Amino acid sequence: MKRFLALDDLTDARLAAVLARAAALERRPLSQALAGKVVGLLFMNPSLRTLASMEAGVAQLGGRTFVITPGQSSWRLETRPGAVMDGEAAEHVREAIPVLAAYADALGVRCFAEGKDLETDMADPVIRAMAALCPIPFINLESAISHPCQALADWKTLDDLEVPRRGGRFVLSWAYHPKPLPLAVPASALLMAARRGMAVTVLRPEGYALPEALMTKARALAAAHGGALRETADRRAALEGAHVLYAKSWAAPGFYGRPGDEAALRQDLRDWCVDEPWFAPAAPCARFMHCLPVRRNVKVTDAVLDGPRSAVVRQAGNRLHVQKALLLEMLTEDGA
Amino acid sequence: MKRFLALDDLTDARLAAVLARAAALERRPLSQALAGKVVGLLFMNPSLRTLASMEAGVAQLGGRTFVITPGQSSWRLETRPGAVMDGEAAEHVREAIPVLAAYADALGVRCFAEGKDLETDMADPVIRAMAALCPIPFINLESAISHPCQALADWKTLDDLEVPRRGGRFVLSWAYHPKPLPLAVPASALLMAARRGMAVTVLRPEGYALPEALMTKARALAAAHGGALRETADRRAALEGAHVLYAKSWAAPGFYGRPGDEAALRQDLRDWCVDEPWFAPAAPCARFMHCLPVRRNVKVTDAVLDGPRSAVVRQAGNRLHVQKALLLEMLTEDGA
Amino acid sequence: MKRFLALDDLTDARLAAVLARAAALERRPLSQALAGKVVGLLFMNPSLRTLASMEAGVAQLGGRTFVITPGQSSWRLETRPGAVMDGEAAEHVREAIPVLAAYADALGVRCFAEGKDLETDMADPVIRAMAALCPIPFINLESAISHPCQALADWKTLDDLEVPRRGGRFVLSWAYHPKPLPLAVPASALLMAARRGMAVTVLRPEGYALPEALMTKARALAAAHGGALRETADRRAALEGAHVLYAKSWAAPGFYGRPGDEAALRQDLRDWCVDEPWFAPAAPCARFMHCLPVRRNVKVTDAVLDGPRSAVVRQAGNRLHVQKALLLEMLTEDGA
Repeated sequence: MKRFLALDDLTDARLAAVLARAAALERRPLSQALAGKVVGLLFMNPSLRTLASMEAGVAQLGGRTFVITPGQSSWRLETRPGAVMDGEAAEHVREAIPVLAAYADALGVRCFAEGKDLETDMADPVIRAMAALCPIPFINLESAISHPCQALADWKTLDDLEVPRRGGRFVLSWAYHPKPLPLAVPASALLMAARRGMAVTVLRPEGYALPEALMTKARALAAAHGGALRETADRRAALEGAHVLYAKSWAAPGFYGRPGDEAALRQDLRDWCVDEPWFAPAAPCARFMHCLPVRRNVKVTDAVLDGPRSAVVRQAGNRLHVQKALLLEMLTEDGA
Repeated sequence: MKRFLALDDLTDARLAAVLARAAALERRPLSQALAGKVVGLLFMNPSLRTLASMEAGVAQLGGRTFVITPGQSSWRLETRPGAVMDGEAAEHVREAIPVLAAYADALGVRCFAEGKDLETDMADPVIRAMAALCPIPFINLESAISHPCQALADWKTLDDLEVPRRGGRFVLSWAYHPKPLPLAVPASALLMAARRGMAVTVLRPEGYALPEALMTKARALAAAHGGALRETADRRAALEGAHVLYAKSWAAPGFYGRPGDEAALRQDLRDWCVDEPWFAPAAPCARFMHCLPVRRNVKVTDAVLDGPRSAVVRQAGNRLHVQKALLLEMLTEDGA
Repeated sequence: MKRFLALDDLTDARLAAVLARAAALERRPLSQALAGKVVGLLFMNPSLRTLASMEAGVAQLGGRTFVITPGQSSWRLETRPGAVMDGEAAEHVREAIPVLAAYADALGVRCFAEGKDLETDMADPVIRAMAALCPIPFINLESAISHPCQALADWKTLDDLEVPRRGGRFVLSWAYHPKPLPLAVPASALLMAARRGMAVTVLRPEGYALPEALMTKARALAAAHGGALRETADRRAALEGAHVLYAKSWAAPGFYGRPGDEAALRQDLRDWCVDEPWFAPAAPCARFMHCLPVRRNVKVTDAVLDGPRSAVVRQAGNRLHVQKALLLEMLTEDGA
């Protein structure tokens, strides 16, 4: 596997192998498997977990990293094909990606959604173009529509917590956030849960239904893996017997790229802040998941985050293990 | 020792051991004592010496680092307990610290004073809260009221320069700076010198007396270690026979958090720029110390900094050695 | 060699040795020759290639790096001797350089032209002052008037492409850019090509003749190495039989430091965007070179950059190899 752009890039067999290796790496974190290897990290957007876990993970495997942050220690990069570059961007990814690849054995790239046109972002053109320009293994560290390292970590977390595949009830819930956010994490969590064969419910207020193309894909994955998918705006119904509430905010698809127009719809939804009472109809030890960063007492209360249901630190911790497994899969002989 | 928040966290015996080890590391800097270890560095504020010396020090011991800079390559972090996070900060340290700890074997954190309320900053609540959230060894890389790595480096510098403990005359002098600065370095230098058993004089203009709680603590340390503490606004008296003039600027405690109100007091103090004539009453080879960064010809003249008295580069160089010794103390079997 | 400020710092014999070693490192990139060594990198200006290639190169040789970026993760540095530092800069290079040197085995520093006074920038006073303050090996990573690592990479690229020394026709062409740019790269490319003994033509519009001191130096180098130097504004004449077109934009020397006054001259030069027809009179497989970053369709068209003539990624890739060779030259016993 030379490109990891979405969970789709792993067959069921390789996905199982990566998860098994991640579990093994959690028990025995250190090796020299990446000795002499350099992993280049290109962050077009901010990061905490991804940067730290990639740096730590490569280090624990004996490899090295470098980090390029356009707009900070480096200039802005242009991504549009054919652009007449008389604006702020000083370099095009058509040069930057092959050049960075000349210095590395793998590249990891973060490039968030442009947030202007839904169909464009759903097609993930920027990360796909960058991957196509890259002659070495390429890892998506969150793109317009996909955050596959997070999806891997979430899958491992569900395994760790012994949430059943068949019969496991997974609720992906919209939550309030002051700004419209990208679809990458909810899309990745949805597809991950569907592929894991769980009974998936998307809980969201009116106007926040996920794009139909995404739901169709998730429905097919669920069907193929023995699961199911439904959506509702009814919180109680959604959480009935739930094993997991995975919270995330996202932009209203009907107002994509028009945050001003969405504001009126959004302003009445401040009560979509996950709190303990939400879990009343859920299974006894229902878990709370979130990819982080999370705005406390806006998206979810202190009570939930500081209580025993919260799996958010475990999720984040698993980023380390799954990314190390992925690097071994992509960069070593016995990985494939 | 799992938390190094202030020099207090080292007993006299451990402090002596750390200083001895630092001297040994200066002679033989390289080892593999931290092989396989990752030290995470979280800088909520800018750094030059601390960042570079931590990176170099860990590298020389065979370990690895990662660096997170909120507000730069990462988003801003909220530190207030119970905050409703609808402002600029996207993540709370309640998540960030445990998550970063999941990727590392030790964390070093810099988080300067908030600069609003003196009593609050004196209690150092933010770094203490972060340390309490951290399940792995935690090093204060400068907090609201404490810069203990600097204090260690300063102690070693005094040893290197053979400034006597008993009978050594140490003057901590206020110096002019265009802005009111935090108390972390003057507090740490004061407590270090008092604990080293020296005859300590705080030299400062009217209005810049250090907080009484700090003076009381320093007085007790001096008494316990055979030293003494006095304060004065009389430059000549202060410097009579002095072995060391340690310059630093700090905010007027009476105007803490109100820089506009302090401005009138401060504007007449531009002659508190350390210059060669200050040393006339001092011991023949009296030394000049400063933690750096220093504004030349504002806080101290070129003549002093470029002359033979200046120990500032040695002080900075000692940051490397003492921090390496501290990491070994905290992270290795034979360190404790 | 303790300071690499310009290609002049390498004798012909050492230059040949560095290029030979670079070629060897391209074939066998990994070693432990820098094990235990720390290379400090100080970037006063943004970087992509230089940062990534230095990090990767040091890593591939078993060494370590740290990176300081004033104005980003660190404060601004003052460079003027004797400055009264009551402005934005919090630290002077007189402290910063010796301090960083205390943590490292070599320093690499980037500090672009001030862009105010041509004669000042031509004398390269800032990087020379910093090098003079540095007790350890010092590498110029682009200064006011010199980018010697780029010059080394360009030389190797010409060798790789088998562009002949004697008889090789090298055209350094001005190209349009929305802003007046520094002279470091054109100066370094010019002197490199002249020293390589090629037939060098500077192609530029009226008003953009390179400073006479630079042309005089290049002419002497060309004469000493069997080459030649001419300049012209006639594109067809310049490119007649050319093997290489090296494009770069630079400020009009007559308007140096006065971008507003240059604007009128510059605005009519948008057709100085290198395109395929430029190569009509050139040798059959004439190559296009540029140091990157490059603004596509402003300075050079997609057609040229994406076509077979473009050597820009190879140039950038060679940065890695020549810098590694240079580090070995400066930091190891058998390098000298």
